[in-house]
Amino acid sequence: MRTVALAGVGLIGASFALALRRAGFDGRILGVSSPRTVEAALSAGVIDEAAPLEAAVAEADLVYLSQPVLRIVDTLGLLDASIRPGALVTDAGSTKLVIVEAARRSLRRAQFLGGHPMAGKESRGVEAAEASLFEGRPYVLTPSGPEELETPAAVDFQEWIRRIGARLLILDPAEHDRTVAAASHLPQLASTALASALASRPNAARIARTAGPGLLDMTRLALSPFEIWADILATNRGPVGEALDAYIRRLEAIRAELGSGRLEEEFRRAAGFAARLRAPE
Amino acid sequence: MRTVALAGVGLIGASFALALRRAGFDGRILGVSSPRTVEAALSAGVIDEAAPLEAAVAEADLVYLSQPVLRIVDTLGLLDASIRPGALVTDAGSTKLVIVEAARRSLRRAQFLGGHPMAGKESRGVEAAEASLFEGRPYVLTPSGPEELETPAAVDFQEWIRRIGARLLILDPAEHDRTVAAASHLPQLASTALASALASRPNAARIARTAGPGLLDMTRLALSPFEIWADILATNRGPVGEALDAYIRRLEAIRAELGSGRLEEEFRRAAGFAARLRAPE
Repeated sequence: MRTVALAGVGLIGASFALALRRAGFDGRILGVSSPRTVEAALSAGVIDEAAPLEAAVAEADLVYLSQPVLRIVDTLGLLDASIRPGALVTDAGSTKLVIVEAARRSLRRAQFLGGHPMAGKESRGVEAAEASLFEGRPYVLTPSGPEELETPAAVDFQEWIRRIGARLLILDPAEHDRTVAAASHLPQLASTALASALASRPNAARIARTAGPGLLDMTRLALSPFEIWADILATNRGPVGEALDAYIRRLEAIRAELGSGRLEEEFRRAAGFAARLRAPE
Repeated sequence: MRTVALAGVGLIGASFALALRRAGFDGRILGVSSPRTVEAALSAGVIDEAAPLEAAVAEADLVYLSQPVLRIVDTLGLLDASIRPGALVTDAGSTKLVIVEAARRSLRRAQFLGGHPMAGKESRGVEAAEASLFEGRPYVLTPSGPEELETPAAVDFQEWIRRIGARLLILDPAEHDRTVAAASHLPQLASTALASALASRPNAARIARTAGPGLLDMTRLALSPFEIWADILATNRGPVGEALDAYIRRLEAIRAELGSGRLEEEFRRAAGFAARLRAPE
C-alpha cells in the first residue's frame, strides 16, 4: 500500500494516519475534509496533501472512511466511479450492518471491508489525535465471509492493523452490532442517563460539590456530543434497546433488594465481570 | 492536638495518618485494628503504636473512626467510659444520619462531629494508603448545629482538614445522606448493575473482548466489594431508592426515544452536568 485516502480527518482518521507513520508507513496520506480541518491536519503533519474525494480516491490503495455512520453511508455512494480497481475501502464507523449493506449496494469496482477500531477519548478532532490511540485496543473487522480477509489488499491492511499495535478481532456485522450495543452503546446511555438524572435533582448543586472520583468516571462518557451518537443509535436501535431493557431490569432487581444481603450475589457477579475486563488477554 | 487514635487502619484511616504527617503533625498516632493490620501499619510507618481501643481512646485528643458504617455505630457504644473530656470524636463513615444518632445516644463525655471525606480508590487497606488521597477532594462535616464547629477541638480539626488539602464542606446529616445517595451510592449501583447485566448477556465473552476505555470507566466502581456497600445501602435505603427511581425513569425515557432526534436535549443536559463536575471551583 502506497497511498492512503482519509475521508474524515477527526480523532480516529488523524490518529490512524499518525499511527501508520509511526509504524513505518512511508507512502502518501491524502486528507478529504472541510477546508478548516485539512488545514489543521496539514499544519499538524497528519496528512501530506488535501484533496477532493474523487481525486483522492482515484489515487488511493486504501480508502479509509472515518466519518459519522450516516456520512459513511453517503460517501460509499460516491466512490464507485473514481475508485482504483484493486483498492480496499474500509471504515471506522461505530455500527456495521447499515454500512456493510450500503457498501454492497454501492461499491462494485473495489472491495469493501468494514472496520471498527474500539478506541476513542472524550476530546475530538485532529488536534486530539495520537499515534498510540489504537495500541492494545481491539480493532474489529467485519467481513461478510472469510474470503474477504484473503485478498492481497485485505491481507496488507490486516498487517498494518497489527503494526499500529491493535488487537485484530473478526466479527460478523450483525454480531458486531449486538456486541457494541452492550459493550459501548449501553455504557454511553447509562452515563448520559446518570448525568441527566442528577442534573434534574433538586440538590444538583450540592451533588456537584461532593462529586468524588467515582462519579467523574461514571459521567466521562456523558461528555460525548449527540452529533456522534445520533447516527449510532439510529442505526443500532434494536440491539441497543435490548441491552437497555436488560440494564433496566437489573436496576429494578437491585431496587427491590436495597439494603438486603441478597445484593451480595449481584456485587460478586459484577466485580467478577469488571475484573475480567481488566485481565490481560 | 497531640495524640490521634485511629479506630480502623484501612485505606481512609491510614491515608489520614499519612496526610497528617505530611501536613506537619508531629504528635503520636495510635492505631486500633486487628493484629495483622496494625503490624502492616507499623511497618509502613503509618502509626506510631498499636493499642487496644480503650487505651488509645484514653490518651487521644482526636478519635478518628474509619471503619464500615455499622462498625462505627458499634465502636461509638464503647467509647464513653474511657474517653478524655475535651476530646473530639469524628468518623469517616459513608452515611451520617445513623452514625450521628448513635453518637447522640452513646457519647456524653466528649464531643462528636460526623465527617465524610469524599475520597477513595478501588484498592483497599493500609497498603493502598496515600498522603495525597484527600487533596482537592471534598471533606464533609455534618454538625447538628453551627455551634458544634466552634469548640476548640472542632476548630483545630477543621484546620487539619484544610492542611491535608481537602475542601471543607458543611452539610446537615440528612442532607449529606441525600446528597451522597445521588453523588456516590447511585453511581456505585449504576456501575454494579451495568457489569452484572453484561455478565449475564449471552455474548458476555465477546463483550469483554471488545471493551473500550468507556466500559472500563463505567465498571471501575463495580470492582468495589459488597462488604463496604452492605452497611452503606442498609443505612441509606430511602434516599438511595429515590435516586435509583429517578435514574430508572430517565433510562426508560431514553429507551422510548431511542434513535430519535429528541435525545439531543438529554445528551445536552447530561454533557452540561458532566462538564460542571469538572469545572474548577
